[in-house]
Amino acid sequence: MELFSDAYFMNEAFKQAKLAFEEEEIPVGAVIVCRNKIIARAYNQTEKLTDATAHAEMIAITAAANALGAKYLPECKLYVTLEPCVMCAGASFWSQLGELHYGASDPKRGFSLIQERILHPKTKVTKGLMAKESKNLLDEFFKKLRN
Amino acid sequence: MELFSDAYFMNEAFKQAKLAFEEEEIPVGAVIVCRNKIIARAYNQTEKLTDATAHAEMIAITAAANALGAKYLPECKLYVTLEPCVMCAGASFWSQLGELHYGASDPKRGFSLIQERILHPKTKVTKGLMAKESKNLLDEFFKKLRN
Repeated sequence: MELFSDAYFMNEAFKQAKLAFEEEEIPVGAVIVCRNKIIARAYNQTEKLTDATAHAEMIAITAAANALGAKYLPECKLYVTLEPCVMCAGASFWSQLGELHYGASDPKRGFSLIQERILHPKTKVTKGLMAKESKNLLDEFFKKLRN
Repeated sequence: MELFSDAYFMNEAFKQAKLAFEEEEIPVGAVIVCRNKIIARAYNQTEKLTDATAHAEMIAITAAANALGAKYLPECKLYVTLEPCVMCAGASFWSQLGELHYGASDPKRGFSLIQERILHPKTKVTKGLMAKESKNLLDEFFKKLRN
């Protein structure tokens, strides 16, 4: 079995962010990986679904649970282009997510602004993969929105 | 039009919690009220849906947005029997919830443990309605679970 890298999976998440961008959604994308296989792909759909909670991570976590038929995701890795907000970080807590990899930091609404433990204590975190590309896509989106 | 009280709506949320209890779900219930009318009722369904994110508040917020065809809920009041966790508080932030009324406090995972602003700045908060009944139902549930 070919083993994929974190960079590969983050690029897959980034492709999801680009799909969001094309559909005029805030461009954030996510994939969830279990045993080296992508079991969920999602992008922000708050506009399409008229649901302020339809963040990429929320959709991906629910989809991953459905795919596995399991409520908890301790063997799963979430790759997301933007630092999760507290809602999504809270969702990752409840699902006992194994690993969180995020790209761009979110200095306004990112969970890491909150000092307390929001993530599950067993969730490993990495950040920075495709951070620049992910942030640029967001900047481009909001620049376009303002014009 | 008959005007209902906060106590009435919290009791409706409590009925939802009892439904959860009967279905062996952690007993938390919620309703969302818009202009004196309940537009969403929900209870925790993490077991039934095999989805750790399927908290009463998440389901209710999405259902309310669907009912209104609107992403934001500034004129809505959420009544929930237990203090929301950070995920649900985050969801209420994104939906710009007008009022949050919760019953029992959650000293372990309640959003108010977190000092930073998680709720939307415009969301008014009250707590304590049916707190005892709501907590008792939870205590009974976990006592039953342990036996």
